[in-house]
Amino acid sequence: MDLRIQKTYEALFALEDIREIFRESLPTGPDADGEKEIKRIAEELKKTISDIESGTGQPKVRAIGNSLPIRDREEAYINIQPIQAAGRLTADARKAIISYGDGYSACDQCRKPFRLDKIEKPCIAGFHRELAEFLGMDEARVVPGARRGFQAVTSTLIEKGDIAIATSLSHYTEFLAVENSHGQIREIPADKNNIITADSAAEKIEEVIRKEGKTPKLLMIDHFDYTYANEHDVYGIAKVAKQYDIPLLYNGAYSVGVMPVDGRKIGADFVVGSGHKSMASAAPSGVLAATSEWAEEVFRTTQITGDVTNRRFGIKEVEMLGCTLMGAPLFTMMASFPHVVERTKHWDDEITKISFLLDRMLAIKGTTVLSEYPRKHALTKVDTTDSFDTVSKTHKKRGFYFSSEMSKRGIAGVFPGATKQWKLSTYGLSWEKVRYLADSFDEIAEKYNLEVAK
Amino acid sequence: MDLRIQKTYEALFALEDIREIFRESLPTGPDADGEKEIKRIAEELKKTISDIESGTGQPKVRAIGNSLPIRDREEAYINIQPIQAAGRLTADARKAIISYGDGYSACDQCRKPFRLDKIEKPCIAGFHRELAEFLGMDEARVVPGARRGFQAVTSTLIEKGDIAIATSLSHYTEFLAVENSHGQIREIPADKNNIITADSAAEKIEEVIRKEGKTPKLLMIDHFDYTYANEHDVYGIAKVAKQYDIPLLYNGAYSVGVMPVDGRKIGADFVVGSGHKSMASAAPSGVLAATSEWAEEVFRTTQITGDVTNRRFGIKEVEMLGCTLMGAPLFTMMASFPHVVERTKHWDDEITKISFLLDRMLAIKGTTVLSEYPRKHALTKVDTTDSFDTVSKTHKKRGFYFSSEMSKRGIAGVFPGATKQWKLSTYGLSWEKVRYLADSFDEIAEKYNLEVAK
Repeated sequence: MDLRIQKTYEALFALEDIREIFRESLPTGPDADGEKEIKRIAEELKKTISDIESGTGQPKVRAIGNSLPIRDREEAYINIQPIQAAGRLTADARKAIISYGDGYSACDQCRKPFRLDKIEKPCIAGFHRELAEFLGMDEARVVPGARRGFQAVTSTLIEKGDIAIATSLSHYTEFLAVENSHGQIREIPADKNNIITADSAAEKIEEVIRKEGKTPKLLMIDHFDYTYANEHDVYGIAKVAKQYDIPLLYNGAYSVGVMPVDGRKIGADFVVGSGHKSMASAAPSGVLAATSEWAEEVFRTTQITGDVTNRRFGIKEVEMLGCTLMGAPLFTMMASFPHVVERTKHWDDEITKISFLLDRMLAIKGTTVLSEYPRKHALTKVDTTDSFDTVSKTHKKRGFYFSSEMSKRGIAGVFPGATKQWKLSTYGLSWEKVRYLADSFDEIAEKYNLEVAK
Repeated sequence: MDLRIQKTYEALFALEDIREIFRESLPTGPDADGEKEIKRIAEELKKTISDIESGTGQPKVRAIGNSLPIRDREEAYINIQPIQAAGRLTADARKAIISYGDGYSACDQCRKPFRLDKIEKPCIAGFHRELAEFLGMDEARVVPGARRGFQAVTSTLIEKGDIAIATSLSHYTEFLAVENSHGQIREIPADKNNIITADSAAEKIEEVIRKEGKTPKLLMIDHFDYTYANEHDVYGIAKVAKQYDIPLLYNGAYSVGVMPVDGRKIGADFVVGSGHKSMASAAPSGVLAATSEWAEEVFRTTQITGDVTNRRFGIKEVEMLGCTLMGAPLFTMMASFPHVVERTKHWDDEITKISFLLDRMLAIKGTTVLSEYPRKHALTKVDTTDSFDTVSKTHKKRGFYFSSEMSKRGIAGVFPGATKQWKLSTYGLSWEKVRYLADSFDEIAEKYNLEVAK
């Protein structure tokens, strides 16, 4: 590991050791031994900070505890891993996680009616209101990942044997949510350009009604799919869903938090987003938002009663299982939120960056883009079968040469061994990094005598 | 906030600002502006560290981002909040959260068959094996909170109208999990000492079979309940469940991670634990473990197929919705785990500490213990209606005087206004802190002329 990054971690860890002394001390402060230990750590820490500045010294900490390696992917590399880009924490989120990591940290000031989204200090209630507004929806709840949002909706709407509509490009977690509710799923086929159209949605609904004699209970549409990150016609499909009176779940795992999303304008009944995928938040985190009409159902409060005690459980929500997302994932969502709101306004810049990179990659003869082109998303699937993969036939590392060459240049996130069809994302990278990436692909191409158009 | 604690946070945050510069830099390192900024932060940081040592300086950082206050409950106070005690992060867990906070940090080395509990680097797979072994069960999965463990089990076992048995002291999340599966719940009544006995369990099962004509599909028993933290006869009840061939879910939210729990010895089919409640982990986190027999059902893999694509989803598990608990909550569980294993061996010491404190509190005339006594758990419900509450009748702050007096002495976690029946926990506190607590109760009693036996 780069020594300065190593030393930054060592300094952070030393401060946690000091913090631990405060934690172990009486409210009156550390005792003599504690003070001595603070002094010792502090003196060493000052040296460590000098080492950060100068890049000197020897690594001291090899692992967290006995065996957990220190992770430096975001510090030492340009990370183009397709699903990691927009989940990377902001500095504010990292500060929040330091302060609020303890288990029930959200609950210090929990007062009646005892529900997470009602807590006013810190302003978790206000965050919920802002979140709903940000998504153009009436109500929002934080959930442990987008999949738990799907599950809440399928569990509410789908009974045994019911049909839910998804698409041939839908994420597997939508399938699992439907399976979990004992429902069946039918896929709207993508067209030859791998786009889901409103016509295709209407045809599929008609086919299901005609052949199976049931109207689907739910339609789930990924605004951008996980394979190509192609944009699908969510506006048109929402209209179709409305015509058939089928509630629409907008899956914004790849849109909520990176681009503007207005659920009301789209015509969505539910909007689901992913915190760790697209909202610069710790996992597992996400959001489920609904119109007021559907909020009544998906956020219905508990009705069950204890037969002996006659206990009821107030305003706890059945699908949320009470409180949902306390602690680190929640506070990272909250701390990143102002930055997330701001960044969605600059989505065009992200498109410009991926387009620039792809133009440069396409100049490497044989490279093609499998995603729709021009791009509407920073995540893109490329095909380098006729460029970078040709090298792997004779290279002693085979396909691994490519990720290895990338890694040597400080680029992480290409699946090791992948040289044919693979995905990358430039989301959130600076122009400097995007140019560095483009130059790196060129360098590797030239090193292995691939033809590069100038 | 105590200035030295304030300065510790400021130093941690400054290091995150340095880390952000590395994150924004090319793999070749920071540019001239970046270097200048590192130097500036580092110089200031050295002063901040001197301030930590000496307690000098002025507070600089008032909030994280615009509005999130810095949390100092664990650093500045003795925290006796009943549910926070055993979820407090270890120093290793805090280091893990710093390193692994980013959304998909668990997934850097995810390889076929692409499932969280199969990842070998970092050794998430090994952790799952150790976790199962630690609980005396065959298989274990991490889940986003104990409630998600209950949900997986009820969703697997309970169909519409089915009956699950819980107790009159069961946690509300068990009720919500059953409600979520469209089941009904019946409570085993506690006896006059607020204990759930095997006889009472057998009677309830008999009653349900006799009156409702159905054998219950599940029996859920909290080893220690959330109200009194009384110990219930899990061994006897497991035997009863076996006689009626009803699967037993052992709810170890208050035991797994603080005391030895051997699911096999107990005779449990499922063991559920809470990471943020009792395993020194970030929320939401927990564990669901099962015998190999039941693991096949609750961890069944997906069977659903796409009708257009014929897609299947490999070994993803339906109830887990694929991967479950990535990032911060998982890595805090892993980093705390060796400490958690070790601390369960010293459960007796924790009982000795709460017993010492209660003896001292009982010397304040009028104070009683509502939990079973002698104690078998560090969490305890006390009744101070005839001691501390008598003061509130004439105090201008009314009941709030008590939490205010506690807070003045650096003690947090007493519900503001509560002076009659309230809960506390001494879990994980040093003897020094326990004595300080006892002395503080005495001081307050004496200040308000309550009678204290010497």
